[in-house]
Amino acid sequence: MNDEITKVPDHIARKSENFAQWYTDVVRKAELADYSPIRGCMIIRPYGYALWENVQRALDDMIKATGHANMYFPLLIPESFLAKEAEHVEGFAPEVAWVTNAGGSELEERLAIRPTSETIICSTYKNYIQSWRDLPVLINQWANVVRWEMRTRFFLRTTEFLWQEGHTFHATAEEAAEETSKMLGVYQSLAEDWLAIPVIPGRKTESEKFPGADDTISIEAMMSDGRALQSGTSHNLGQNFTRAYGIEFQTREQGVRQNPYQTSWGLSTRIIGAIIMTHGDESGLVLPPRVAPIQLVIVPIARKAEERARVLAAVDEISAALHGKVRFKVDAREELTPGFKYNEWELKGVPIRLEIGPRDLDAGQVVLARRDTRTKAAVPIASLAEAVPALLAEIQQSLFDRALALRRELTIRVDDYAAFTREIESRNVFLEARHCGEQECEAIIKEETKATVRCIPFAGPPEEGPCVRCGKPGIGKRVLFAKAY
Amino acid sequence: MNDEITKVPDHIARKSENFAQWYTDVVRKAELADYSPIRGCMIIRPYGYALWENVQRALDDMIKATGHANMYFPLLIPESFLAKEAEHVEGFAPEVAWVTNAGGSELEERLAIRPTSETIICSTYKNYIQSWRDLPVLINQWANVVRWEMRTRFFLRTTEFLWQEGHTFHATAEEAAEETSKMLGVYQSLAEDWLAIPVIPGRKTESEKFPGADDTISIEAMMSDGRALQSGTSHNLGQNFTRAYGIEFQTREQGVRQNPYQTSWGLSTRIIGAIIMTHGDESGLVLPPRVAPIQLVIVPIARKAEERARVLAAVDEISAALHGKVRFKVDAREELTPGFKYNEWELKGVPIRLEIGPRDLDAGQVVLARRDTRTKAAVPIASLAEAVPALLAEIQQSLFDRALALRRELTIRVDDYAAFTREIESRNVFLEARHCGEQECEAIIKEETKATVRCIPFAGPPEEGPCVRCGKPGIGKRVLFAKAY
Repeated sequence: MNDEITKVPDHIARKSENFAQWYTDVVRKAELADYSPIRGCMIIRPYGYALWENVQRALDDMIKATGHANMYFPLLIPESFLAKEAEHVEGFAPEVAWVTNAGGSELEERLAIRPTSETIICSTYKNYIQSWRDLPVLINQWANVVRWEMRTRFFLRTTEFLWQEGHTFHATAEEAAEETSKMLGVYQSLAEDWLAIPVIPGRKTESEKFPGADDTISIEAMMSDGRALQSGTSHNLGQNFTRAYGIEFQTREQGVRQNPYQTSWGLSTRIIGAIIMTHGDESGLVLPPRVAPIQLVIVPIARKAEERARVLAAVDEISAALHGKVRFKVDAREELTPGFKYNEWELKGVPIRLEIGPRDLDAGQVVLARRDTRTKAAVPIASLAEAVPALLAEIQQSLFDRALALRRELTIRVDDYAAFTREIESRNVFLEARHCGEQECEAIIKEETKATVRCIPFAGPPEEGPCVRCGKPGIGKRVLFAKAY
Repeated sequence: MNDEITKVPDHIARKSENFAQWYTDVVRKAELADYSPIRGCMIIRPYGYALWENVQRALDDMIKATGHANMYFPLLIPESFLAKEAEHVEGFAPEVAWVTNAGGSELEERLAIRPTSETIICSTYKNYIQSWRDLPVLINQWANVVRWEMRTRFFLRTTEFLWQEGHTFHATAEEAAEETSKMLGVYQSLAEDWLAIPVIPGRKTESEKFPGADDTISIEAMMSDGRALQSGTSHNLGQNFTRAYGIEFQTREQGVRQNPYQTSWGLSTRIIGAIIMTHGDESGLVLPPRVAPIQLVIVPIARKAEERARVLAAVDEISAALHGKVRFKVDAREELTPGFKYNEWELKGVPIRLEIGPRDLDAGQVVLARRDTRTKAAVPIASLAEAVPALLAEIQQSLFDRALALRRELTIRVDDYAAFTREIESRNVFLEARHCGEQECEAIIKEETKATVRCIPFAGPPEEGPCVRCGKPGIGKRVLFAKAY
């Protein structure tokens, strides 16, 4: 990217100087979301919601293609339900919002607004699961959840957020483990193939796993400031909840009953934050074409009235040619200059701008300007129906490649704690280091450097050697440390 | 419909004997929804949710096609916001569920779980609407809402329900009135064209309008037991909320500021109840093809192993031919008899059953059995890709025609109160009668007969004459009375 041609709109902070403020400015000025009068809750504005709908559609299709069905459970969960799985209630109780009064009376038992739905789902499926024939259960829910967070940020951490939560029950531990991995694979595919965000799938350590899970696996992405963002998690719940809720099924073996094995997995509006922070630049958003609400904006350029009619007629023709192939918008507002429009659509991250004026028309062509590289090229009007989809695909790939290149550049192998602290204190990087796997040691590293174990990547090769900090034997492969959102 | 060939599964109540129990049985046995442990909240099961998703998709497309954008507002609304519009808070306060404690502390101000979102939306758009250039605002939200109902029934009235709520702001009263009508038209189109439910659009009387609205219009449908179900409402809010919330815009005229005109309109999971009660019969659900999750079920019939392979090969061919044209399912479960399967898919309301056995194969044909009329016809395999979509369209139309015929049969014009009470006491009917339009008179009729004014139909011709009960001059056209859900 050529920095010299990057015009910085004066109303967003410089990304290179104040990343956090840049993020907030982009969210608000690009009209993705806004503050609400309710502490920690945001308003998702039409442009942001359209982006979320595109993400939802892609993910929902994949969830269904892997055999899951959507359903809907109540928003409110009795306190006694939440309390049945000990680790779970301990993990979530501090964040719960409680309904204590309804319909004009105090409730006998207070009701939690769901922070997640394992408990209500277990209490329901206790009735539905009787035999091995009832398994597997493969369901999913699109819903809002509430977790009372102290420090909130648009999309990344809000008191209420939107998500999907998948919940499954299986006859065997192997099937549950396979499901846990499969759905993380779906999240990886969403992130990489649709959102152009390269991710690292791996296992969470004890201190970062879901309350009540045997095992939590996640995809971790590097944001363009070098910090990590957990972008989707999948939990193998084992029999922890099914035992606590007394769910039992008759196995194929006569007379044998056992607790089924369970998984849950979720991806939320947080992923919108990942899109913004992975691809955005000094001019604002840069949206991956596959989920961009507007993939192409057409800006007709004509100062004189007679030119305008001719240009708009050509725009109509182009629109007809692109209809059904590309999500596009014509910005024919008369009161605004082309330059103003360029800035606005750049801020909003539209992947391609199509400029068309009288001289272009004379030459039978238009100019296509890429948002990501800011390069421009003249393209014959007759070939637009093929050229635009092809360019969108190229941009999609290019965004992924750029993000992957940055992650590689900012990923460093360290073998001693001096190097570890030096690197992480000088800038945000991913550190590949050996670790003993002990919670105490992890806590000390976090305390001293703010870096945490993001995951134990699945992909890394086995590697013996001492822990980067304490020198005890490592867990047998490198783990990924980073400062996280 | 030929009653003699109707097999009544022993596990659902007879519709003709106990409509209410039949309804509950169908909802539960067809696995649309189930009771939840939370008072008045239901669990929407995969089959019911898939039906809702199809309704949602159709409506969402129409909402977008009429220029509206989706967005999302917080679930929780501060008490002080709710209180700003006097009629509104009076109408909704008794039904509100209150969050009083969150994140481990008592809240300074309690938060309502949204019963509807006018208040939070007005407080937000106060910041966005400054000039006539910011109008119209055309937005919609898909969300869950909570209203603490005393008596609940699956889909028809639940403590939590799912819906869409549209909210718009306009520069003129005319535009707001036009929007209110336009969106009722969208609901009418959804009901009639997609759900095969004929509806009567009209105006609500004072006692039935939305708290805070100038005017509420609705679509009213006759269920197959002769009762009325309000199936979608559109409200002209005038300037009531915009005045209360201090929303003002600069008009085109220099220096003049005024409150914009507002509308809201909603359609909820209640419509699923309308589908069940309009079309269902003694054997269970009858789903309109355009929204049926499964439009066709294929039941292979083969007792011997060698026949089975041959039949299943033909099923594969048929599946390939129907792929992408029809939503179908193959029920090849070996442990169940065809008869069992027929009952199950009839209960679930699948519009067409395709039966295929060795003898059919020999003749190069299959049997298509219609769920609505229970008629069967042999159809050549080679023509299925055209025949099935055509038959689905025929069934869709036929369901609408049947419902309309029933409504006509059960709609009676009455001119005196003796006839009015005699008719409504003997059975459930729609009564077209003249009325004075006074709330007191309406209340007396309700008290004495349980019938209420469902609406003042838009379609009726002007007609002067005395009120059916009190004899005072009528409002100038007949109104529609019925017992309502």
